[in-house]
Amino acid sequence: MHTVAQALEIVLANAKPLVPISMRLSASSLGLRLAEDAASDVDSPPFDKAMMDGFALRAGDLQGGNAELAIIEEIPAGTMPTKVVELGQASRIMTGAPIPRGADAVVMIERCELLPDQRVRVNEPRAKAGLNILERAKEMRVGEVVVHAGATLRPQEFGVLASVGRDVVRVQPRPRVAILSTGDEIVEPSQKPGPGQIRNSNGMMLLGQVARAGGEPIFLGIARDNADDLRTKILQGLDADMVILSGGVSAGKLDLVPGVLAELGVEALFHKVAMKPGKPILFGIRPPRLVFGLPGNPVSSLVCFELFVRPALRVMMGRPPGPSWVNARLVKDHPYRTDRPTYFPSRLTLTDAGWTVDPIAWFGSPDLRGVLSANAFALLPEGDHVHRVGQALAVLRVEDPH
Amino acid sequence: MHTVAQALEIVLANAKPLVPISMRLSASSLGLRLAEDAASDVDSPPFDKAMMDGFALRAGDLQGGNAELAIIEEIPAGTMPTKVVELGQASRIMTGAPIPRGADAVVMIERCELLPDQRVRVNEPRAKAGLNILERAKEMRVGEVVVHAGATLRPQEFGVLASVGRDVVRVQPRPRVAILSTGDEIVEPSQKPGPGQIRNSNGMMLLGQVARAGGEPIFLGIARDNADDLRTKILQGLDADMVILSGGVSAGKLDLVPGVLAELGVEALFHKVAMKPGKPILFGIRPPRLVFGLPGNPVSSLVCFELFVRPALRVMMGRPPGPSWVNARLVKDHPYRTDRPTYFPSRLTLTDAGWTVDPIAWFGSPDLRGVLSANAFALLPEGDHVHRVGQALAVLRVEDPH
Repeated sequence: MHTVAQALEIVLANAKPLVPISMRLSASSLGLRLAEDAASDVDSPPFDKAMMDGFALRAGDLQGGNAELAIIEEIPAGTMPTKVVELGQASRIMTGAPIPRGADAVVMIERCELLPDQRVRVNEPRAKAGLNILERAKEMRVGEVVVHAGATLRPQEFGVLASVGRDVVRVQPRPRVAILSTGDEIVEPSQKPGPGQIRNSNGMMLLGQVARAGGEPIFLGIARDNADDLRTKILQGLDADMVILSGGVSAGKLDLVPGVLAELGVEALFHKVAMKPGKPILFGIRPPRLVFGLPGNPVSSLVCFELFVRPALRVMMGRPPGPSWVNARLVKDHPYRTDRPTYFPSRLTLTDAGWTVDPIAWFGSPDLRGVLSANAFALLPEGDHVHRVGQALAVLRVEDPH
Repeated sequence: MHTVAQALEIVLANAKPLVPISMRLSASSLGLRLAEDAASDVDSPPFDKAMMDGFALRAGDLQGGNAELAIIEEIPAGTMPTKVVELGQASRIMTGAPIPRGADAVVMIERCELLPDQRVRVNEPRAKAGLNILERAKEMRVGEVVVHAGATLRPQEFGVLASVGRDVVRVQPRPRVAILSTGDEIVEPSQKPGPGQIRNSNGMMLLGQVARAGGEPIFLGIARDNADDLRTKILQGLDADMVILSGGVSAGKLDLVPGVLAELGVEALFHKVAMKPGKPILFGIRPPRLVFGLPGNPVSSLVCFELFVRPALRVMMGRPPGPSWVNARLVKDHPYRTDRPTYFPSRLTLTDAGWTVDPIAWFGSPDLRGVLSANAFALLPEGDHVHRVGQALAVLRVEDPH
């Protein structure tokens, strides 16, 4: 039986970044990794540009900060100036408009007084060449790489890419993840379970976990406990980048799943990990496809996903694998005896004094409802320990701290 | 001119939670708020249930921890037992299966040895009533509220809701947000800008910000600087829950936007806020619709969205408004003079010793590219200050710290 660290190493050795695709920027590209260097095809700004509404003029005209000048032109944003500003002249200019030739400064409108006969009185003691002008190419230059391969696409990357004409870019795509629940006792959530039956809650939870991890879930429903149904649906799942099977991997079950997987050319690399909850977890490959068989117990399934599946998805998306661990101080004594390293549902909080962790009331791996009040899992070592208030524990983060 | 706090107060006084809708659980319901109490229609587990593969038996039979018992039945998960376990008898049972009448304990298979003639030798010194049995309704009981109104839908809520048959629930929907860029000088990102033109980068950035904030962006393209085009497109936008206009609100511009808004029944509540970047920002209402006019400068637009628009969206989704502030220590001296409270692009990092903040190299509100290396905005007060290394600053968080 592997340790969690050994099992994760095996998973990560087999997870590869997906082949990049071209994609138009949209809400669904948020958070993806850029898979190419994006260079600018323009200087930005494309010209010396006014940063204020006011008058473009020659700073040298303002002896002692004052001048009376002739207005020769009006330059709204989006138009090009047609006249050269000579000594004694000024052009009305709007924020964003190109500076006319001859001018070397912009005085803001609040410091100008319009006079009759197309004249203006200017008062700006701080006038000097360059005032309120943004130089051409100050932000970026033609040919310069402005967003580098590996960058995560956030709103500001969207903006910069759009400004250089890259509304279509190459990215690491979202892994497509087929989710297949297994078992004769499972019914759809919309059905009322009969005697001995339970609803397919793990499938829905896995759908949420895949989406939270950045993947694209594909819901394949329920496969019954016979080789034909399993074969058909797993084969369908193998069209995706990853298959997650829920249930059907515990040693006591009919062991149909491992057999069908072998038949379909999936090589099993491990099927047990020394951890609690979640011992029976299967990992197999049909390169480049990854196959996970997660335990049927809901909290086992939840934890195994976060420890093994999410890191694989992150690698496939070109990201560092994680998982994300923090050290947090216990807020109360927590005596606990366990024969395997245990991931205990807990409430993780970021305070001014750092992270704190509060194990929740929880009776074991079938208790998913208890986990509603948790946002993380504290790692409790094997053995019989009284974990003391104030003691630091390693905590597995699965969501954001706010 | 309002302070940021005053302006935010006005925005929040006019933002109302949206009317709940019914929605099938799916990837796109992740992060939404539940708008009803969800009660269980089942006991969970629905019966006393085996937590291990092994043998169901009477604990009293194991005097000294040992017994030889007759096997009377096999109970896989998903089936109901048909026989009562009497003294001297045991039934083979799988994890998840119902405990047969008569039995009061399950001994794990590893502690059992099969004998000829349908008999089994059991060795379990710790055997007592209840061993490896999960009692009926231990997790939840029929009629009990298991997920409360206001809960955020995470994977574990998906799982619990599915287990009680609630794959369709009432939620606060995502606000639909129409995004309209304005200006004769704006061209689509796919076009090469001519003289005096710039690409529509803010529209794309706003799309990303709306999606990151949980809203559903609706991209209306570019309205030209004439009343007809503005009227048509703003009217179209008013079908959504919110309209964001980009550009066209600075005092020097032709002032078409405020006029058109007034004509369409949008009441302007403010159009200037004492902050940098981003002074010209318009906020108006046509209840329950909210209208924001954001400045054309990209970083101004970015910051104004986070300070005012995102909190409104959060309220509409039934969440606490934010924005999210943390105190962080400066990692270097940062002298800065400003006439208005300034939101300075910075790198915020969570260390073992708390948050640190590092202002990036940045030349002002047109410099969106500089902001690629930022993940937060440090608030610098007005005046001429040398902010010293180690000093604490308030920092506006706009994304996750990892």
